Formats: sequence, C-alpha cells, structure tokens
Amino acid sequence: MSQIQARLLKGFRDELPETMLPKQRMLNAVAETFESFGFAPLSTPALEYGEILTGKYGEEGDKLLYQFEDNGGRRVALRYDLTVPLARVMGMNKSLPLPFKRYQIAPVWRAEKPGRGRFREFMQCDVDIIGSPDLMADAECLGVGAAVLARLGVGRFVIRVNNRKLLTALMRKIGVTQDAQALAALRSVDKLPKIGEAKVRALLRDTDGLPDSAIDGLFEFLRLKPEGLSAFFADDPVGLKGAEELNTLLSLAEAQGIRERVAVDLSIARGLDYYTGTIYETFLLDLEDMGSVMSGGRYDRLLGMFGGDEVPAVGISLGVDRLFAALTELGLIQTQASPSQVLIATTDADLNAQAYALAATLRAGGVPTEVFLGAPRMKKQIKYADRRGIPLALIVGPDELAEGEVLLKILKTGEQRRIKLEALVAEINAATQPGA
Amino acid sequence: MSQIQARLLKGFRDELPETMLPKQRMLNAVAETFESFGFAPLSTPALEYGEILTGKYGEEGDKLLYQFEDNGGRRVALRYDLTVPLARVMGMNKSLPLPFKRYQIAPVWRAEKPGRGRFREFMQCDVDIIGSPDLMADAECLGVGAAVLARLGVGRFVIRVNNRKLLTALMRKIGVTQDAQALAALRSVDKLPKIGEAKVRALLRDTDGLPDSAIDGLFEFLRLKPEGLSAFFADDPVGLKGAEELNTLLSLAEAQGIRERVAVDLSIARGLDYYTGTIYETFLLDLEDMGSVMSGGRYDRLLGMFGGDEVPAVGISLGVDRLFAALTELGLIQTQASPSQVLIATTDADLNAQAYALAATLRAGGVPTEVFLGAPRMKKQIKYADRRGIPLALIVGPDELAEGEVLLKILKTGEQRRIKLEALVAEINAATQPGA
Repeated sequence: MSQIQARLLKGFRDELPETMLPKQRMLNAVAETFESFGFAPLSTPALEYGEILTGKYGEEGDKLLYQFEDNGGRRVALRYDLTVPLARVMGMNKSLPLPFKRYQIAPVWRAEKPGRGRFREFMQCDVDIIGSPDLMADAECLGVGAAVLARLGVGRFVIRVNNRKLLTALMRKIGVTQDAQALAALRSVDKLPKIGEAKVRALLRDTDGLPDSAIDGLFEFLRLKPEGLSAFFADDPVGLKGAEELNTLLSLAEAQGIRERVAVDLSIARGLDYYTGTIYETFLLDLEDMGSVMSGGRYDRLLGMFGGDEVPAVGISLGVDRLFAALTELGLIQTQASPSQVLIATTDADLNAQAYALAATLRAGGVPTEVFLGAPRMKKQIKYADRRGIPLALIVGPDELAEGEVLLKILKTGEQRRIKLEALVAEINAATQPGA
Repeated sequence: MSQIQARLLKGFRDELPETMLPKQRMLNAVAETFESFGFAPLSTPALEYGEILTGKYGEEGDKLLYQFEDNGGRRVALRYDLTVPLARVMGMNKSLPLPFKRYQIAPVWRAEKPGRGRFREFMQCDVDIIGSPDLMADAECLGVGAAVLARLGVGRFVIRVNNRKLLTALMRKIGVTQDAQALAALRSVDKLPKIGEAKVRALLRDTDGLPDSAIDGLFEFLRLKPEGLSAFFADDPVGLKGAEELNTLLSLAEAQGIRERVAVDLSIARGLDYYTGTIYETFLLDLEDMGSVMSGGRYDRLLGMFGGDEVPAVGISLGVDRLFAALTELGLIQTQASPSQVLIATTDADLNAQAYALAATLRAGGVPTEVFLGAPRMKKQIKYADRRGIPLALIVGPDELAEGEVLLKILKTGEQRRIKLEALVAEINAATQPGA
C-alpha cells in the first residue's frame, strides 16, 4: 500500500470526541424525550432509488442530490431528508397501524455550497405523526418540541405558528391567483423581521408585481390577532378552516401548559407547496439571529405520491447543528475528550489485578473509569488524564493497598488524599459532584 | 408530483420500530459500556475521497466499494469499514494525544451479493486504541468486549485468541516462504472446526501444495499449549515474541478476572496481511454456528499508510446484526412497536388538559406515556394500545376525576381498577414491574 495524503472532502467533517461526546449526549437526550412521548425509532437506508427522491425537493433540490449509477446499473441517490424516505416506508407498509408515530435521527446529504456551519452531510432529527388528521397531532409536535428544548436547557424560546390555509385564503382574497406570484410574495414577507415593512412593501410592488391594494390587504392580514381571523375570512371556507385550526391549536397548547411558548406569526410561510395546515418555526430568544432551530408542519398530501391514498401527516424537525451551536454559545457544553471520570494509575505492573478490580467496582457503580495502558512514570499518567479532562486519578501503590486504601488525586486542584477501598464509589461520587 | 412505486434497493432494508426499538436499546447499552471503559465517540463522514479507500481491502474489496463521481468531478466512495477512516483521521490530526481510545457505531456500505442476513448497508460497531504498543491495550479490548457481551446477556461465550507473529514464525519454520501459499494454508486451517483434520490435511497437500513434513509441522503447532510455544520457537525471535505476547495477554485476562472467557486457538488467522499481533474471534457457546460475533486484532502497520509514521493500533469490532439475531434467538428481545408504557385515553375532549397533565407527571417520573390523538370511542383507543404492545391504559373520565382518581386498565389481562391520582407514578411503576 503506497502513501496517500490523508484528506477530507470539501463540505464534510470529522467530529472528534471533544465535540462528539457532548453531541451524542444531546442526541440521546433528544431521543429519550421523543420516546417519552411514544415516538418509536425507524431506520431507513442511506441509498434509495433515484426516482424515489428526484422531483420532491424542487429543481434546486434535484441539483443538490448525490446521484449515481451503482454497480448493477441502477440509478441511486443518497437521501436528502428523512421525510420522503418515511413516505416511501408508509407506501410499502400499508398494514402499519395508524397513527404511526416515529422519530429518526440520521445523516442526510446535500451537495450545497459549503459555508460557515453548512455541511454536505449533516444530521437530521425528525418526529412525525402519520395518519392522524386531528389537531391533537399538530399539538403533540408542539408538546414534544417544547419538551426537547426544555430538556436541553437552551433557555427561553418561542415556537411561532401559522396555518397554510390562511395563506391560501389570503392570496385569493387579495387577488394573487398565480402560485408563482404567491410564492414570491410570501418569500418577501419572510424578510419582514430583517428589512422592515417599508422595504418589504417595495419588494412586493416592484419585484413581485403586487398592486397596492393587495399589499395593503396583506399587511392588514399580518396585523390580525388569532381571534380576528374568522371575521377577516368570513366568506372563505378555507380561511375559516385555517382560523379554526389555528385557534384549536392554541387551546391545545394551553391544555398542555405551553401556551406561553407558542406565538402566532402570520408571516411565516415555509415552502408553499409542501405544507397544507399548521406550520412551525422556533427561535431562541437569547440567540434569535441563529435562525429557526426547530420547524415543520402538516403535510397532508405528500404521502399520496407513493401508493395512491392521501394520508394526513404532521411533523417537526430539529436543527441539530444549530442547537449544538446554541448550547455551545450559551456555555452549556462541557468539552471533554474522554468520558472517563477516573484514571487508575500504577507504576507497578504487579498491581494490575488490583487496578482492574478497582475499575470494575467503579464501572459497576456507574463511574466511567479507565486503567492506564502500561506502567510508565506517574507524571506521564497524570498528564494523560489532564490532557483528556479526566477529573480524578486513583493511584494504586503497595503501601496504601496494604492498609486497604488508595490515593485519590483531584487534577484541577492538585489536592490528593487517601481513601478507603470500601468507600470507593461513594468517595468518587462525592468528588465528582459539581462544586466538590 | 406523479405517482411513483414505493420500493427499496436490493440488499437494503428498513428497520421498523418493532425491530429498531430493541436494536437501538442494544446499541445504547454497547455505547454506554464502551464509554464506561473510557472510549469516546468519533464521527466521520460516509463519503471519502475514492483514493482513501481503494486498495485497502484487496481486489475483492475494491469491487464492493460504492464509488462514483460527485457533482464537482471528484472520485468519491462510501465508507467500507470504520478502520480506514480512523486511520485517515489519525493521519490528519497528528496532535491528538495518544493513546487515542475511540468507538464508532455507524453504517458501512458494501455492494455484496445480498443473502440471508447479509445487507449492502449494515452497522459497524468498533472500539480501537491507537498509539499504545502495550499488551494492556490488547487486554483492554478483551475486557471491554467481554463486558459488552455480559451486559447484553448473550449467555456463555468464548473469545478465541491467537497471535499473528506465531503464524509468521510457523510458516518460516515449516518452509512455507511465499505469502500467497501461507495465506492459502491458513485459509485451509480455518476450516478445521467444520471439516476436520483429515480433510484439512488433504486440502493443504493437494490444493495448497504443502509437503507432508510442513503439514505435520503445522499440526504439531496447532496442538501446542501456550506454555509450550516458547520451546517450539526457541530459535525464532518473532515466534518467541509472539509466544511472550500471547502469554502476557493471558495473564492480563487473568488479572481482569475474565481468563475463563478467553481460549487460545492457534488456528485462527483473520486476514494475514492486516494484523501484526494479537487476533480475536468470539463465539457464543449456545449458538456456535452463528459464526464470530466479535473480532479484531492488532494492526501496527495499517496507520502508516496515511502520513508516514507507523502507529501501533489494536481494536475489536462487534457484529451488531449477528448479536441482535442471537438475542432474538435466545428470546431476549422484547418486540414492541411503541416505547410507551401508558396510553392516556379519554372520550371527552374537554378533559384534554387533565390528560396532558397526567402524561406530564408520568413522563417526569420516567414513564414513557402518550395521550391518544383525538377522542373516538374508548374501544378504538384501547385497540390502538393493544396493537402497539402498550401495556397500560389510563382512562380519564369526569366521575373518577371528581374523586381524584383515574381508571387503570391492564391490557394483557383486561383487569381494570381505579387508582388515586396522587399515587400515579408509584401505581404505574408497580403495574409495569415484571410479574405484576
């Protein structure tokens, strides 16, 4: 084997233990929260038939697909998201009992221009409920989403909600009947928090070609309170349905005790073609310019594309990388290159059996522990622990052992003291408590 | 979007909740055990430059790689294992403190002919120690491997160990000097447990072209006890080193209290070119024909291919699919399509707030709980729980609530009784205990 330069593809990354250890813990907490609400894990392959994925993400999306021909001459593609594979699974497993509540945490691939915090392989983290048209399903996504963010401790957040039916009715009401123009207008409205009303009005008029009356109607809508929506759409059954759905969602948020985490925002649109009802976007109040960290909505028509019947569906997707960045920025990520709490060190290879026995006792007590591999000078072993952020060292020596003791060294302070072997786990737990 | 037939690529699979829920729990237990020994998680991308992977797995392996040209004209490939990417990471991160103890649990892709239990995408689950030449590192792999199998509860098992240096010295001693012939001979020896000594002797003579004297020497070696190895290789420094390493490994297994889980088997070879010292294979004594469920070894020269220096390395890889199949066969897998322990049901939408509050209390008490999405007839809600294997239902009704109670229904027996709200978590925990 000849020498090869070790290098990584542009837009891809390794995640070294220092990052991966806290990120894995974050993902475990997310999965545990999903399961606490009754969502079950699903696994689908990274590779799908090309035709399953193409045409689902718009022209732009198709360009970003990793597509190729496999050795058997099949056109295949790496998954672009977790929603279309889920739709495929539902199409192939018609006997699955509905509603089907699943979560999936898995990488997806998009050949995007790499940029700050944007990668060509990244983790998606989705919960979806397939087969329930009930607004309680929409509310469940709010509930589990709020529980995840609370569990992660990202501070104050707001889940902004809207309903796609309101936007459809609005466009009809203001006379914007072409889908392309409606889409363009909603994209301009999306810029409202960034560029302000005057500039959005200019965009709507000059770029999107809306008449002033339509623009006025649009801003009248944006200023409505949820309780005013029914009157605004008095003549439009779709608008009335949207108003009813949004108000029901708010009462179900109230019933869940999370009403104060939810805010109506009639300006959010999220992919005009895809969603059919509720839509969500979530912002961290202490890091608002981070963008949405959790979003989704109801997509009652998407599943129909595999296998005929339309199946109602609603889901929410966590932005894992953004949430991890947020936790890091908030100082909530403990970077440590090793999961070990204790390093067991000895300079006497004859004491290996005792060192291993101590490690086994600590592991059984729930304390991740490693035994130094070899028996070099103690200084080298302590340095090993120090460089990896292992907080404690247990030094095993013949004199201490003879008295049923070992030496405990607390690396941060340099303090060391003898502890009794029979109180090992308790002593270590006490020493690793915060503030110890 | 037009109608598309929902289908899956040959050799790929979906894992539905019924399978994925227990498998995810198995993988979590494995990861937790790895971490309890101080191994930290590493993540590497699924896609690598083609040149990083080609030529590492032999001619056969190259054919099995999923290789293609990406949109930027780069030759790329899906990872084939987790070891070569690890070597690449080490080549790119020379300042990582050594020894570096990492684990990785991630899918790999091989375009193999699909067969019973053989898939083109499957999970690999590896622990490796990079940068320690010490036999304690080899012993650590035994220790963590044995701990994982004990934790999973797969019953009795034996980790068979050998040392590549012994095989090198043996071939020299019996006059087999060509690598290809040595490799062929070891492959024939690998068949010993299946076809017996007479047939292996015939293969060695007729197919591999070994003279009788060499065959006799080989079988003399295979019958040696570890303590007889040094005498057998008295004149060969490589053989003596191998004998010393194997015996040291056995004493370190003894020191770890796992000597009875370890057996010397001088016939195991595992990829002649790759390994340089200790080699492992693991068999379940109750399911021996399942093949090795955990294997690996020391590969001190592999990491040299990226970046110059040879770096000692040793590792062990778990066969996740085989272990899961073993657990299933042993009746240790509880298939349940939902993680929920409790379904909260009410036919009165006005009681949603109470239902949500009960769910929140149970989740806070560690009990995965879901609220039925909607309020149809109770029979339908109970059927929902039943089909998903949710063991308990809490029925929320106005009369019971007025007395501070709810109705608990145990689905398996049909039994139902009222329980006090203030004892909710305790009652549910009691009802979900095994044997309750």
